[in-house]
Amino acid sequence: MSSATAIAHPNIALIKYWGNRDQRLRLPVNGSISFNLGSLSTRTRVTFDAARGEDAFILNGRPVHGEGLARVAALLDIVRDMAGLSQRAEVHSENDFPTGAGIASSAAAFAALALASSAAAGLDLSEAERSRLARLGSGSASRSVPGGFVEWQAGDSDETSYAFSIAPPDHWALTDCIAVVSSVHKPTGSTQGHVLADTSPLQAARVADAPRRLDLCRRAVLARDFEALAAVSEQDSDIMHAVMMTSAPPLFYWQPATLRVMQSVRAWRGGGLPVCYTIDAGPNVHVICPQDAALRVSERLKALEGVERVLTATVGGPARLVVDR
Amino acid sequence: MSSATAIAHPNIALIKYWGNRDQRLRLPVNGSISFNLGSLSTRTRVTFDAARGEDAFILNGRPVHGEGLARVAALLDIVRDMAGLSQRAEVHSENDFPTGAGIASSAAAFAALALASSAAAGLDLSEAERSRLARLGSGSASRSVPGGFVEWQAGDSDETSYAFSIAPPDHWALTDCIAVVSSVHKPTGSTQGHVLADTSPLQAARVADAPRRLDLCRRAVLARDFEALAAVSEQDSDIMHAVMMTSAPPLFYWQPATLRVMQSVRAWRGGGLPVCYTIDAGPNVHVICPQDAALRVSERLKALEGVERVLTATVGGPARLVVDR
Repeated sequence: MSSATAIAHPNIALIKYWGNRDQRLRLPVNGSISFNLGSLSTRTRVTFDAARGEDAFILNGRPVHGEGLARVAALLDIVRDMAGLSQRAEVHSENDFPTGAGIASSAAAFAALALASSAAAGLDLSEAERSRLARLGSGSASRSVPGGFVEWQAGDSDETSYAFSIAPPDHWALTDCIAVVSSVHKPTGSTQGHVLADTSPLQAARVADAPRRLDLCRRAVLARDFEALAAVSEQDSDIMHAVMMTSAPPLFYWQPATLRVMQSVRAWRGGGLPVCYTIDAGPNVHVICPQDAALRVSERLKALEGVERVLTATVGGPARLVVDR
Repeated sequence: MSSATAIAHPNIALIKYWGNRDQRLRLPVNGSISFNLGSLSTRTRVTFDAARGEDAFILNGRPVHGEGLARVAALLDIVRDMAGLSQRAEVHSENDFPTGAGIASSAAAFAALALASSAAAGLDLSEAERSRLARLGSGSASRSVPGGFVEWQAGDSDETSYAFSIAPPDHWALTDCIAVVSSVHKPTGSTQGHVLADTSPLQAARVADAPRRLDLCRRAVLARDFEALAAVSEQDSDIMHAVMMTSAPPLFYWQPATLRVMQSVRAWRGGGLPVCYTIDAGPNVHVICPQDAALRVSERLKALEGVERVLTATVGGPARLVVDR
């Protein structure tokens, strides 16, 4: 038996990933930029065991079967191939953030799984190799491998599509105030959504314009220019949702309260508060602000109709191995 | 003194007009398709009078000055040029639909003005010439000149950019149930909005894809295929708003209640009710359905949070001269 445990954080994309040029390898059609959410994490222990007949995946204490287990087992197969290993594994994973609150957990999950499983299998992978491995489980997981502010270069092959830090966590004290909004519908998952991206008449224009947005965002992060970051990240989020809403079938992730938060954030910024929004494939609104404004922003968000709760996260570090509890 | 009175209806675009290739001539970047809203109308009387020193515009009993008067006078100048006339005019215009309810009135206003002013000036214009004249006052007014279901061909010059009927009013008994939604902000007017269209990274893709959407919509109208009409008109509306939301500065016309109506309409259609939405440059939702479903649709709309009232309109006829009251 060989075992390893890793912790990884979810990340919030400032320039979004939507659509693959290769669905199987999860090679994205455009690069993306994110930062890790340090206050939220997934802890995953992988134990390879010669006595096991099949892989098992236990999430927050409950065995997962079907599609969830299949995605974990597929990543383990890749690791086994790399390590020349045949043993099945038991994977225990726990999120310290509320499930069902609509925080996308697959990025943290596959970043932690890539690190723990490769370590348990005796592989000594570089950060880029771990990022590539995580990408094969969930595209955005590639960005949860390096620390701080991260860029995932699209690349054009398995070898060239990985993420790296563009600035460490302490480069810029930003906070993500996540406005959790009630949702009556279970949204379409990202994996299915990426397949629909090309059905929108707007996706090609979104992709063609991505280098401009990536450049603006990278510069804004490096210069700690909040106004510039706000403009480009809101536009990028709106562009992704424009593609989603105009795909066939259309994907609408915004709820009335989502729109209320967006409007409020723009109004607050107009009134001088440094704050902007970005929205993933769900109804929650990630409201980004400098850390010293986070308390005010959280209080204002909680007062809005339709906001059920607010989670906050500062900029987090890389996925890392930890000593087992 | 010579006088003429005309009545015209607003129209609701199923394929939208957004962006000009020539701002002054209001030559649109893409064609559009609409139907006239027969139950709503504007009545306009134009009186040329040698004794008048300047043009006057009285809207719903109140004199209009500034920008509103200037746009009317500019159209009158064109008519005077065409007719070799120098007399100033008094223009009386009345809407039979509530002002301030967010129903765009400029289409009906300039269609009625084009007809009444050209007739009062002794011009005998063809329908295409009246449509071109109305277009110079307000782009979408070109579509309120012909009757029923109307296509405005973009054209590439003043001579070739006009609208014509593709089917008469009784071709298809549709109803527009206009869900009037409360708005705290006065939205940016279309005339200013058209100028911003090209600042969106998505506008070129919207325009490039327009022939496909026009073709789908034209076929759906001619075949009275409601499902096809619903799919293309919702997508076209969402695409226009995608461009608006991603322009610089962004234009957000949707309110939380707008989104609630959109979601409800999609859910009702999923449940078998023939109904779809389309949204102009404002927060109101035009909910289109076959006439025999209009009562049910109106009742459901009125029950939604944030819907202040519902106006209904059936498919209307062309702009026409009437005997003065």
